[in-house]
Amino acid sequence: MTGFAIGVDLGGTNMRVAAVDECGAALEIVSAATELRRGRDQVLGQMAGVIRELTGRHGSGRSLLGVGVGVPGIIDLDNGTVLSAANLPGWSAFPVKHHLEALLGAPVVLENDANCAALGEKWVGAGKAVEDLCMLTLGTGVGGGLVVQGRPWHGVMGMAGELGHMTVLPDGVACPCGSRGCLEQYASATAVRRAALEEAARQGSATLLAGLVERDPQFTARAVFECAQQGDAAAAAIFENVGLALGIALANLINALNLPLYVIGGGLAGAWEAFCPAMLRELKCRSIVFRAGEPLQVQHRNTLISRSSLDDSAGLLGAARLPMLAQTLPHSCSIAG
Amino acid sequence: MTGFAIGVDLGGTNMRVAAVDECGAALEIVSAATELRRGRDQVLGQMAGVIRELTGRHGSGRSLLGVGVGVPGIIDLDNGTVLSAANLPGWSAFPVKHHLEALLGAPVVLENDANCAALGEKWVGAGKAVEDLCMLTLGTGVGGGLVVQGRPWHGVMGMAGELGHMTVLPDGVACPCGSRGCLEQYASATAVRRAALEEAARQGSATLLAGLVERDPQFTARAVFECAQQGDAAAAAIFENVGLALGIALANLINALNLPLYVIGGGLAGAWEAFCPAMLRELKCRSIVFRAGEPLQVQHRNTLISRSSLDDSAGLLGAARLPMLAQTLPHSCSIAG
Repeated sequence: MTGFAIGVDLGGTNMRVAAVDECGAALEIVSAATELRRGRDQVLGQMAGVIRELTGRHGSGRSLLGVGVGVPGIIDLDNGTVLSAANLPGWSAFPVKHHLEALLGAPVVLENDANCAALGEKWVGAGKAVEDLCMLTLGTGVGGGLVVQGRPWHGVMGMAGELGHMTVLPDGVACPCGSRGCLEQYASATAVRRAALEEAARQGSATLLAGLVERDPQFTARAVFECAQQGDAAAAAIFENVGLALGIALANLINALNLPLYVIGGGLAGAWEAFCPAMLRELKCRSIVFRAGEPLQVQHRNTLISRSSLDDSAGLLGAARLPMLAQTLPHSCSIAG
Repeated sequence: MTGFAIGVDLGGTNMRVAAVDECGAALEIVSAATELRRGRDQVLGQMAGVIRELTGRHGSGRSLLGVGVGVPGIIDLDNGTVLSAANLPGWSAFPVKHHLEALLGAPVVLENDANCAALGEKWVGAGKAVEDLCMLTLGTGVGGGLVVQGRPWHGVMGMAGELGHMTVLPDGVACPCGSRGCLEQYASATAVRRAALEEAARQGSATLLAGLVERDPQFTARAVFECAQQGDAAAAAIFENVGLALGIALANLINALNLPLYVIGGGLAGAWEAFCPAMLRELKCRSIVFRAGEPLQVQHRNTLISRSSLDDSAGLLGAARLPMLAQTLPHSCSIAG
């Protein structure tokens, strides 16, 4: 009998639940509003309900391997609890894993959502051909995940991959984390909006960008990208700065880790053409390891920077992968000399 | 029969060779000048001679497990060649491993010297109690090495750990690597000397530091540290900047990797008291992962920054560890969820 797993991508606004087969193909995806105001137990009950529906529809002739849940927060992996999650008030320290296991009668694995996205890309996305990768998710904030030897790298407290808080400009923009010049302050959708507002205020209303900001106070980073594509110089400069910040952060990661692949996903990755040239320029200048790989031209030996190939399904598929990994023995490490 | 191994720390000026038992105790250490001007083959012949002497003196009742050689350069681990080593002209692309194996009749493992130092600290130094650590060696330049699951982390081209070329100030001092503001430009003995020369030129000869520079054009970073200890404000400020740069680089590594231990070694680590306060201040400000670990107070769960406990023997002992690791199966990975 073949197996399948359930992946959950739990966001503050929506939750998505997928039944996924062992090859990484989604059998069905269900999306529902996360009704946080009705409380944690209600949300978990709703999630369990959707999972039961999916297992009912796809479980005949297939065995359920388990449920993986991607959560936007810091996870205590040993206890299956959420240590901290800004967008899920009231969830901290609650034994989510055990509660769901009791509701479902199936093994549940909790994981940070950025790690899920990295794992999804490794499984069936841009990273299929490698065992190690780093993923940056450029959304409202900047999330990060590392996959080492095919599995999420958690670090000693489960906090590895806080890549949005790498310093790129020591005296730069203040970050709510307490530092200054964090990557997230330059390479997130929020940062693009902030820069667009600042630029528009400087320019008056003579430009495309200023017009956008005046017309639509709820303008998106995507709309700023469209201004850049239509030739607005200030909008283009905003994405140059995104590329510069990404280049500095990636150069540091590449110099430190020398992984074969760095994947960039999240909504802002849609502006790839606008930030990629500056990012690569900065990388070539700042990373001797990146430059050393260029003449190699040996696949998976040089350094590849790639767009996510799964877009917003990366986290959902990666979450479904978790219970499958939990059932196999860890890979033996081939990282040693 | 117990085993022992030979470790070699090959520098541009001196080579040190040690016979080391399986517990990491040095049975004997021999130091000799590296006579590079006599050519590569001569140096390798000399090295083989010293190794034979040591194995002769310590091999009765013990079996030789092999020879590990730490080289200041980039190693092609698959082929056992030196890809590039600024201080070893003429060594590039030469099959060092096979040549030494033919001379000695014993297995030889080549490794980058900074990785050897990290491995030495993990084996019998500051990192004995952990499986994962990062080491920064502050010398003429800044070297870096990562140990993951008890073994050196090489990355896909063997170039992981180029931590001296992490950007800490994007518009900072130009670095020979082609970038600007590399850690090495702020936290090496060379950087301390450069800063001291600049300060002395600004100050005239009224201060301790200016006096030192005038009196001894060959002054060392250690002498600058002594000025700081005697109350020279400019000398103290130089080490503040060392701490600031280290704090930024370490914060980035901690946020990305969440390892339990970061070890600082090399000659400049002797100025620990002078740079440590600024380093910790910067770390607390810039690393949410470092801060999250502070209240934990759980040994090996929070983040520890520690001085090297082996000083200049770390690389030598780590080199001797290499053939021992080569004889054991790789650890299974416990890094997964």
